[in-house]
Amino acid sequence: MRVVISIGGSVLAPELDPCRVEGHAAVVESLAREGCELGVVVGGGGVAREYIGAARELGANEVQLDQIGIDVTRINARLLIAALGPGVDPKVAENYEAAGDSIRRGDISVMGGVMPGQTTDAVAAALAEYVSADLLVYATSANGVYDSDPKTNPDAVKFDEMTPSELVDIVAPMSRDAGSSAPVDLLATKLIERAGMRTIVLDGNDPDRVEAAVLHGDHDGTDVIP
Amino acid sequence: MRVVISIGGSVLAPELDPCRVEGHAAVVESLAREGCELGVVVGGGGVAREYIGAARELGANEVQLDQIGIDVTRINARLLIAALGPGVDPKVAENYEAAGDSIRRGDISVMGGVMPGQTTDAVAAALAEYVSADLLVYATSANGVYDSDPKTNPDAVKFDEMTPSELVDIVAPMSRDAGSSAPVDLLATKLIERAGMRTIVLDGNDPDRVEAAVLHGDHDGTDVIP
Amino acid sequence: MRVVISIGGSVLAPELDPCRVEGHAAVVESLAREGCELGVVVGGGGVAREYIGAARELGANEVQLDQIGIDVTRINARLLIAALGPGVDPKVAENYEAAGDSIRRGDISVMGGVMPGQTTDAVAAALAEYVSADLLVYATSANGVYDSDPKTNPDAVKFDEMTPSELVDIVAPMSRDAGSSAPVDLLATKLIERAGMRTIVLDGNDPDRVEAAVLHGDHDGTDVIP
Amino acid sequence: MRVVISIGGSVLAPELDPCRVEGHAAVVESLAREGCELGVVVGGGGVAREYIGAARELGANEVQLDQIGIDVTRINARLLIAALGPGVDPKVAENYEAAGDSIRRGDISVMGGVMPGQTTDAVAAALAEYVSADLLVYATSANGVYDSDPKTNPDAVKFDEMTPSELVDIVAPMSRDAGSSAPVDLLATKLIERAGMRTIVLDGNDPDRVEAAVLHGDHDGTDVIP
Amino acid sequence: MRVVISIGGSVLAPELDPCRVEGHAAVVESLAREGCELGVVVGGGGVAREYIGAARELGANEVQLDQIGIDVTRINARLLIAALGPGVDPKVAENYEAAGDSIRRGDISVMGGVMPGQTTDAVAAALAEYVSADLLVYATSANGVYDSDPKTNPDAVKFDEMTPSELVDIVAPMSRDAGSSAPVDLLATKLIERAGMRTIVLDGNDPDRVEAAVLHGDHDGTDVIP
Amino acid sequence: MRVVISIGGSVLAPELDPCRVEGHAAVVESLAREGCELGVVVGGGGVAREYIGAARELGANEVQLDQIGIDVTRINARLLIAALGPGVDPKVAENYEAAGDSIRRGDISVMGGVMPGQTTDAVAAALAEYVSADLLVYATSANGVYDSDPKTNPDAVKFDEMTPSELVDIVAPMSRDAGSSAPVDLLATKLIERAGMRTIVLDGNDPDRVEAAVLHGDHDGTDVIP
Repeated sequence: MRVVISIGGSVLAPELDPCRVEGHAAVVESLAREGCELGVVVGGGGVAREYIGAARELGANEVQLDQIGIDVTRINARLLIAALGPGVDPKVAENYEAAGDSIRRGDISVMGGVMPGQTTDAVAAALAEYVSADLLVYATSANGVYDSDPKTNPDAVKFDEMTPSELVDIVAPMSRDAGSSAPVDLLATKLIERAGMRTIVLDGNDPDRVEAAVLHGDHDGTDVIP
Repeated sequence: MRVVISIGGSVLAPELDPCRVEGHAAVVESLAREGCELGVVVGGGGVAREYIGAARELGANEVQLDQIGIDVTRINARLLIAALGPGVDPKVAENYEAAGDSIRRGDISVMGGVMPGQTTDAVAAALAEYVSADLLVYATSANGVYDSDPKTNPDAVKFDEMTPSELVDIVAPMSRDAGSSAPVDLLATKLIERAGMRTIVLDGNDPDRVEAAVLHGDHDGTDVIP
Repeated sequence: MRVVISIGGSVLAPELDPCRVEGHAAVVESLAREGCELGVVVGGGGVAREYIGAARELGANEVQLDQIGIDVTRINARLLIAALGPGVDPKVAENYEAAGDSIRRGDISVMGGVMPGQTTDAVAAALAEYVSADLLVYATSANGVYDSDPKTNPDAVKFDEMTPSELVDIVAPMSRDAGSSAPVDLLATKLIERAGMRTIVLDGNDPDRVEAAVLHGDHDGTDVIP
Repeated sequence: MRVVISIGGSVLAPELDPCRVEGHAAVVESLAREGCELGVVVGGGGVAREYIGAARELGANEVQLDQIGIDVTRINARLLIAALGPGVDPKVAENYEAAGDSIRRGDISVMGGVMPGQTTDAVAAALAEYVSADLLVYATSANGVYDSDPKTNPDAVKFDEMTPSELVDIVAPMSRDAGSSAPVDLLATKLIERAGMRTIVLDGNDPDRVEAAVLHGDHDGTDVIP
Repeated sequence: MRVVISIGGSVLAPELDPCRVEGHAAVVESLAREGCELGVVVGGGGVAREYIGAARELGANEVQLDQIGIDVTRINARLLIAALGPGVDPKVAENYEAAGDSIRRGDISVMGGVMPGQTTDAVAAALAEYVSADLLVYATSANGVYDSDPKTNPDAVKFDEMTPSELVDIVAPMSRDAGSSAPVDLLATKLIERAGMRTIVLDGNDPDRVEAAVLHGDHDGTDVIP
Repeated sequence: MRVVISIGGSVLAPELDPCRVEGHAAVVESLAREGCELGVVVGGGGVAREYIGAARELGANEVQLDQIGIDVTRINARLLIAALGPGVDPKVAENYEAAGDSIRRGDISVMGGVMPGQTTDAVAAALAEYVSADLLVYATSANGVYDSDPKTNPDAVKFDEMTPSELVDIVAPMSRDAGSSAPVDLLATKLIERAGMRTIVLDGNDPDRVEAAVLHGDHDGTDVIP
C-alpha cells in the first residue's frame, strides 16, 4: 500500500520537542516495516510562525513570508529524517519528482513546502496524486471534519464519512476567513477531489492513531471516500 | 509603475497564430516604452489542451497533466519572447525569484506555469505579490467579473468595481464545477486578497485594451480595488 | 541486451494521436519484459514544426528555434512516459548522465533533445555511446538507408548492410541540402562511426518492426555493422 | 570601498527580535548610501542552536547538524533581506559566485552558510577573498581579539592591532576546545592570512559600531593589518 | 559590434603558458575598450589531449572522453577569466543562455565546451547565433581555409573569401578522416551556414591578428561572407 | 563495512599516468568485491599544481585558485571512474548528498573537491561523517603521522596509534607554515575529532597497502582510534 502522510506543523513541532518528532518517526518506521511505501509531508509549526511574524514586521511581502515558511518546513523535514532509520532518503525532497523517485526506489521520502502560494496540505495532496497513492492521511490538530467550527459551535457535528466533493463544499466557506477553521486547506481538497483520492483526516497529536488508521482503518477522524 | 500581466492561453494562443502573439508583444513593448516595469505570465491555450487530452487517454495522472500544461506555457513564453525586442529577458523565468531578478535589472520577464496544482492565474498573482507590483491585469476571454455566468445567465451583471474580498466571494462558488465559469482562478483571487493587490480583469482578445487599461485606466472590465 | 531506440517525431507524433504513442509504448514494454535495458529518445513531430514555424515568423533565431524544438520533444517524452507502465523513470532525462543513471538502476529512460545544434538522432547516438549500448535502433519514416533519395530517384537501392563509415559517406552528401533526404542526421552517423556502434535503421511507422528487429534481428531496414 | 560584513548569529539573532535585525539593516543601508559595495554573511543564532540540539538528540550526524545550521542561517539572511530596502538582492546567495555576481551588479548580497564543515566566519573570509574586498568586518559577541579568553582570564589583554599571522597564532590554541573561546573561527583566520585581508573584529551588538569602523576606522575592537 | 571569438585549444594552451593566455586576454580587453560586446569560447589544448589519452587507456567511452575534454576547456576558461580585468563575468558560462545573459548585461562572457558530441568550434557558432553576433572569429592554428590540406599538399590554395555554403562544401570531405585537417569543425560550418553568420578564420597564434581583423577587417585568413 | 578512502593528488596523479590510476582502481574494486561500501575522494596532483601556478601568475585570487583545483580533482575523479568497472556511479559526486545517495544505492561513489576553502582531505572526513563510515583511510605521500616533519628531522617518531585529539594537536602546529608538512589537513583532523571517526593514515603510493589495511588492519601507517 502506498501512503502519503501529511503531518501538520502544529502536530509535529508546535514547539521544538525531539520526543514528539521521535513519536512520529516511530509510527512511520512501523508502517514501513508493515510494507507501506511512504511519502511524508511536514508543516512549519511554532518556529515558522515566529519567523514569519518577525519577517512581517520587517516588511517582507507575502511571497517572502511563504518562502520563509517553506524553509522552516524543510528543516522540520530534516529533523524527521534524523529520527528515521536507514530506510529514509536522507535528502529532503524539494519537488514531486524527487519524492516520487525516492519512493519508487523503496525509500521513505520526506518533504516540506514546495512553492509560495501552496500550503503543505496541498503539497501532500499533489504528492499523493503524483505517486498514485492508495491513501492520503492528514494528521492535524483537528480530529476530523466538522460541519462547522467545533471551537465556536458546540453543536458542530463531525463527519465519519464523506465524499471529496462534500469535503470541498464544507471547507470552501470555512477557508474564507483569515484565521481559517478549516481542518484541511481548500486547494488541497480540490486536488483530492480531482484525483478521487481516498483520504483520512484525524487528530495527529497521538501518532499511534495514524498507524491504526493506515493499518486497520481504525480511527475517530473523517474518512473521505471517492 | 510596476505591472504584472496575465495573458490567458485562450487569449494568447487559442491555436498557434503568430499574429496574435505579435499583437500582445506590441502592447507589452509599448507599455515598456512608457516606462512600465513588466512581468508577463502566459497560459497554455489550444496546444496545452490537446496534449493534456492525449496524455489523459494514455493514463497520465493529474500532476503529470499539470506538468505537460506547464511545459506548453513555457513554450508559449518563448514565442512571446521571440516577438519582443531587446528589452526582454530571453530566458523563460521558471520561478518568482528568477522573474523578480529580471524585472529588478530592467528587463521584461516572461514566465509560464511554475508548479503542479497552480494555474497561471495564481502564478501571476504570486508574481505580482513578489515584485510588489502596482497593478495586476488579467487579459482573459471573459470581459470582466459577473455576478453569475453570463454564458448561461442572460441577466448576469458585470461588476465595474469590487474589492478583493468580493472577488473571492464571487469566484468561490463559480470555481466549484469542473467546467468552471470563473474568470480568474480561486487560488489567484485569494492571493490577490491577502496581498491587497490592485487588479483589473478584462477581455484580452484585443491586446490594445490592456494598454489603455494600464496607461489610462480605461477599460470595460472589472476593477478590483483593495 | 542494452538498446537505445530513437523514435523520430514524424513516427511518434506526426500529429498528436494517443494510439500511435500507445503502440510504441507497447513495444518498449514488450522489449523490457524480454529483458532489454532500454533508453528511448523521441523527436518533435508536427507540434514542433508548427511552433518552430510560428517562432520563426516572430523573429526567433536558430538557437531559439532549437530550444522550442527541444521543449516539444520533452513533452512528447512525457506522453510516452504516461503510456508506459511502472518500469519507466517518470522523469524526462535532460542529459546523458540522468538517462544513464535511470538505465543503470533498471528503469526505462525516456529523453528528448538536449542542446541547441544537436538533433535527437545525435542524442540517441551519444546516449548509446554513453551507456555502451549493444544496439541502436532508428525508428524513422524512411525504411532504411538508400544510395540516393528514393523519393526522387526510383532506382535508389537500399542497403541491407553497411559499415558505419559507409553510412557516413552516404549520409554526408545527402545532408548537404536544407530539405535533407538523409534518413539519419550526419552528426549522429559520425558518433556511430567513432563508437563503432551496431545500428539498425528501419521504418518505425509500425512499431512492431522495432520489436522484431531487436529480438530477432528481423527487419527490412538497414543493418549498420561495425 | 568593497566590504564584507560577517554578522554572527549571536549578534543578529540570539533570539528572534525584529528590532535587532532592523538595526543591522539600517547600518548596512547607511554604508551602501555612503558608496560601499557590500556582502553580508549572517550566522545562525538561537534558533540554529535549538534545532541542532533537537536533531542531535534524534541521532543526526555532524554533517546533518551542519546542514540544519546552514538552513537556519539562510532564513536569517531572508530576515535581513526583508529589512533592507530595494538595493539588496532579494535572493539569498548560496555560493560565492552568486554573491559575487550580485555585488558586481551593484546589489547588496546577503548569504548564510555554504557547506558542511565551514562556519559562516569562514564563508565571510572566502567571500571577501572572492570579491577582492578592501575590508572584512566581524561583528561578533566578543569586542576584539584577546591574548587569552577574557571570560576566564581577568588579565587577558586585547590587541588593538595585529597581523593575520598573529591572529592565526592566537586563535589556533583557543580553537582547540569544544566550547571554543576564539572570537573568529580558525579556518577563517587561515583564509584571512593567505589572502592578506584587512580585517576588523569588533563587538557587533551595537550595529553602529560597524558603521563607525567602516566609514571612519573608528572602533574599540582589533585591527588585523596585513 | 557584437563578436564571438573562438580561441582554439592549440592556440590558447598548446601547453600551459601564462604569457600566451595573457596575450589573448590583452586583445579581448582591447576589443572591449573599443566598444565590442564579446563572447569568448576556448578549447582544450595539450592538457585535454593528455587527459583524454589517459582516460582512453583506462577504458573510458567516447562520451566520457568528451566530458573530460569539456572540463578542461572550462578550466582554460577560468585561466582566461583570471587574466581579464573587471569587465569579464567571473563565472564560466555553461550554456548559451548564461553566456547571452552576461553579454546582455555588458560583461565579457567566457565559456568552454557544453555537451558531449559538440566541439568548441560548434559551441562558438551556436553562441554567435544565440546572441545574434555581427561577427564570429576562429583563432585557429591554421591561417585560413584552404582547398586542400596545406600540410600535405604544397599546392593548396587559401581562400581569401568564400560563402558559408562553400565553407561547408570544403570542410565536409576534410572532416572525413580521424586526423581531420579541417580548420573548423563540420557541425560548426553547418551552423554558420544556417545562420548566415559573418565569419573569419585566421591564425590565432599571434593574438594581435584577432584585434586587427575585428577592428579593421585586416587579416591574412579567410573571410566567410554570407 | 563502509569505508571512505582519500587518495591524495600526489599519490593518484603526481603526473598523469594511467597505470597508477589503474592500480588504485584495482584496489577499490577488490574492496568492493569483499563487500565494502565505498566512497573515494581524490586530490589534484601535478596538473592542479601547474594550473594553479599559471592562474596565480595571471592574477587569480585564492578562491579562484581553489576553484581551479576543484575542477582538476573532478577530472581526476573521472579518470578513476573510467578505470573502475560497472559498480561505480559514473557521475562525479559534487556534494555529500550526491555521494551518500550513490553509496546507499550500492554504488562506489567518487568525488573530488567541493568548495573553495576546503581541501579534499576535509571533504573525505566530512563524507565519512555524512555516511557514518566505519573507517576513513588517507592514502598519502607520507607513511603515517610523525611527531615532527621526518623530512627535516631525522629523529622524528611515527605514531602507530593515536587518538583524534592527539592527531589535531600534532597537526595544528605543522599546519602553520605555507609549505605545510602535515600529513592530513587541519580542518580534516578537526572533523575526525568531532565525529570520533576511526582513521588510518598510510603511504598510498603502493595501493595494495590500502587493501591490506582495510581488510586486515595490516599497515605501517598510523591508526587514529577514537
